[in-house]
Amino acid sequence: MTDLAFLDATDQAELVRRGEASPAELVDAAIERVRKVDPELNALVHPRLDRAREEARGALPEGPFRGVPILLKDRSAAMAGEPYHEGMRALRDAGARAPETSVLVHRFLEAGFVVLGRTNVPELGLLPTTEPEAYGPSRNPWHPGRTTGGSSGGSAAAVAAGMVPVAHGNDGGGSIRIPAACCGLVGLKPTRGRTPLGPELGELTDFLVTELALTRSVRDTAAVLDVLQGGAPGDMYTAPPPARPYREEVGSEPGSLRIGLTTDAPAGLGPAAPDCAAATEDAGRLLESLGHRVEVAHPGALDDAGLVEIFTVLWQVMVAFDLVKFGRRLGRDLGPGDVEPLTWALAEEGRTVGAAQLVDVHDRAQVFTRRTVAWWDDFDLLLTPTLAQPPVPLGSFSGPPDNPLEGFLLSALFVPFTPAFNVTGQPAVSLPLHETAEGLPVGVQLVAAYGREDLLLSVAGQLEGARPWAGRRPVVHA
Amino acid sequence: MTDLAFLDATDQAELVRRGEASPAELVDAAIERVRKVDPELNALVHPRLDRAREEARGALPEGPFRGVPILLKDRSAAMAGEPYHEGMRALRDAGARAPETSVLVHRFLEAGFVVLGRTNVPELGLLPTTEPEAYGPSRNPWHPGRTTGGSSGGSAAAVAAGMVPVAHGNDGGGSIRIPAACCGLVGLKPTRGRTPLGPELGELTDFLVTELALTRSVRDTAAVLDVLQGGAPGDMYTAPPPARPYREEVGSEPGSLRIGLTTDAPAGLGPAAPDCAAATEDAGRLLESLGHRVEVAHPGALDDAGLVEIFTVLWQVMVAFDLVKFGRRLGRDLGPGDVEPLTWALAEEGRTVGAAQLVDVHDRAQVFTRRTVAWWDDFDLLLTPTLAQPPVPLGSFSGPPDNPLEGFLLSALFVPFTPAFNVTGQPAVSLPLHETAEGLPVGVQLVAAYGREDLLLSVAGQLEGARPWAGRRPVVHA
Repeated sequence: MTDLAFLDATDQAELVRRGEASPAELVDAAIERVRKVDPELNALVHPRLDRAREEARGALPEGPFRGVPILLKDRSAAMAGEPYHEGMRALRDAGARAPETSVLVHRFLEAGFVVLGRTNVPELGLLPTTEPEAYGPSRNPWHPGRTTGGSSGGSAAAVAAGMVPVAHGNDGGGSIRIPAACCGLVGLKPTRGRTPLGPELGELTDFLVTELALTRSVRDTAAVLDVLQGGAPGDMYTAPPPARPYREEVGSEPGSLRIGLTTDAPAGLGPAAPDCAAATEDAGRLLESLGHRVEVAHPGALDDAGLVEIFTVLWQVMVAFDLVKFGRRLGRDLGPGDVEPLTWALAEEGRTVGAAQLVDVHDRAQVFTRRTVAWWDDFDLLLTPTLAQPPVPLGSFSGPPDNPLEGFLLSALFVPFTPAFNVTGQPAVSLPLHETAEGLPVGVQLVAAYGREDLLLSVAGQLEGARPWAGRRPVVHA
Repeated sequence: MTDLAFLDATDQAELVRRGEASPAELVDAAIERVRKVDPELNALVHPRLDRAREEARGALPEGPFRGVPILLKDRSAAMAGEPYHEGMRALRDAGARAPETSVLVHRFLEAGFVVLGRTNVPELGLLPTTEPEAYGPSRNPWHPGRTTGGSSGGSAAAVAAGMVPVAHGNDGGGSIRIPAACCGLVGLKPTRGRTPLGPELGELTDFLVTELALTRSVRDTAAVLDVLQGGAPGDMYTAPPPARPYREEVGSEPGSLRIGLTTDAPAGLGPAAPDCAAATEDAGRLLESLGHRVEVAHPGALDDAGLVEIFTVLWQVMVAFDLVKFGRRLGRDLGPGDVEPLTWALAEEGRTVGAAQLVDVHDRAQVFTRRTVAWWDDFDLLLTPTLAQPPVPLGSFSGPPDNPLEGFLLSALFVPFTPAFNVTGQPAVSLPLHETAEGLPVGVQLVAAYGREDLLLSVAGQLEGARPWAGRRPVVHA
């Protein structure tokens, strides 16, 4: 059988469809790869390898990804009866398990994927690096001393190293795009409401978050979006349905687009580091060579420093609520000894926020959104660096024990380009178009108008064709 | 020229299209009707009759309602430079005017409607009766001592009395359906996200609210929905687009539907009064005679008393935030002397709610939604009374000065059937199918699954055909 490690999910599924590989062969090979490289990378926190082996030998749904191995991030994507910890020591020590299976996971399973386990995340997904005290750091396959990004860092490490072709991720401030950039992957954050959040999340509470995956190919991202997209009963809102399957966008001709380019971060958070700026300018030239019109331009509303306060308040309140929520699951109040110092510090801030103030912040988020998206009346895409710096060394955002917020503030300067589009709900993708002289991945971000994943995937496919990345291999790989 | 008073908007627009009436004739006739009956009914608080007369003689957009007179509710539907008070004495005394025109009003204007003024509302839309201290009570055309309902009570009185064929309304707890029931009109609350809220409202802050209108015919409701529906740039979410124009649903054959009927109010708030129960049972028999299968059934989740707390907290926080918002507009803090005692009491409660508690309530709202809507997997429609009682006497919910919340609690027993579907975001319509022995209107409510206004309008058209109400005239009419 062909070496499966760096076949994408589309190719692996095709082998099964043609009878050239069985689901059991795909899954067994993936388990072997996990055993080979995960001890060094620490991507999985809850392996279920024996279960996966059994499931691959049982009746699998006749979905488009029948028999393809996958990993799920241990934040949302709950599976009834499986461990569910969100990087929290308190949940780990209590042996907490999910009470029900999310709609998203039902769709992964109906598509035929076989789940090999759950991946590492920073506690409550708070940092853009995956180093929870509870489970230790995930390591970047391109440089094991560097961050995988976060919060979907375990998923990104696993896909980049070739353990699985696809791993679930979600993005509430950049948590798909950031690890995609750090690990040299494709990371699409879909339009708000595109993929279902229920039953463990909700459109009102978790309006910053959308769910999807980390992949190595644009066509895999499109095909996974096809199986996950669409409303579910009880959703409070939906996104506009696509005109045709997203996989048909990959390879389609997007026409000549007007694209604005910026390398300065939103909210006055400064210019990107030279490698990240160079990656963006290089991508701009590549887009021009493909017939697009690229100019230095961005939505003026992005410069509004108010964005930082909006995001900070939303984040603090989310943490305060999460401690209430998981305290209920454990049947006791969570105290400062139960969580990391940063988590407690953010929750303390969140507890001082009043409900009317939160409504005010929601209102300001909508005003920011209306001002920002108007720019897309005149432009098709915005091109930015995904990150302000190449993947930083592990430990960069730990912060001193007496000032846990310091690391959080530092981390904001690492990821200033992604959160704005969680507020506006627009789709945005990180593509692995560049690397530093020492071989660290650098991503560029493309942002489309609300509902226009079709355009992002068409252009992403063009870029992948013009400068393919599939042949690159990280230092640590299966 | 034909007597225009009780022609619906579709017919009035048709006269203009055929050249049988000019926009000026339609508008002049409506102004005459306003002058005749509004002194008794107090539907308008900000007339702009001279402006309307001029506009009708100027260039009007070639929309489907070219030249048809309309009124806008003085809560949302802002018009730049026009008065905007939401029933507040403080805004009235300051001569407050709207800073910008809402997307909704742009769409009304592009459709060709001519705005004759703005209609009366209870302060901040809080009560289901339109009796603000600032502007005095609106009176029910069917019985001037009775409530018009609220909060779109001024709009309902104007349409019922024949001043205009259509008036704008919005519904955050029943505020379209309640006055429709009180005044013998058609009142559809669309699916969440169907009609735009921007820029003065937002999907996150005002997720209970959708915008539409009060009309006298089902086809007018459908045609107005056609001109208002659809997203706008900056919306955070949208509703699924319709398969065809809504006006084509009216007169279409809905097939044989499975319909659940209940006359017991949600959250254990008791049985409806005999007239309201009889109206519902009668509507059930009528639906059976049209070939539908009607059985006594309702979503079990509706019985959950938690709904009352969810709604109460959301309401209190909304009031607390509104006082902040309008204080900003006035450039000073609003105090107890600026608002009605009920408003202040609710704001005081709202100010004690923490942000994490509000997030928790949002989460519970989503859990309630998921549990409730599952019922529609097996049923097509739910049939209930719109109100628990026929229109009550004016003053019924005033409450004693030392306990302003008492009137609010009483009012909840008048309107227990409507708020659940603001939480779930489902479309629901009140139809004027019944009246009491003394001639007071009694409405019945039909509730469809998320996004299924098409089905509601099809069935509503069937019922209107089987038991037409267009010939009835209220005591006070133009």
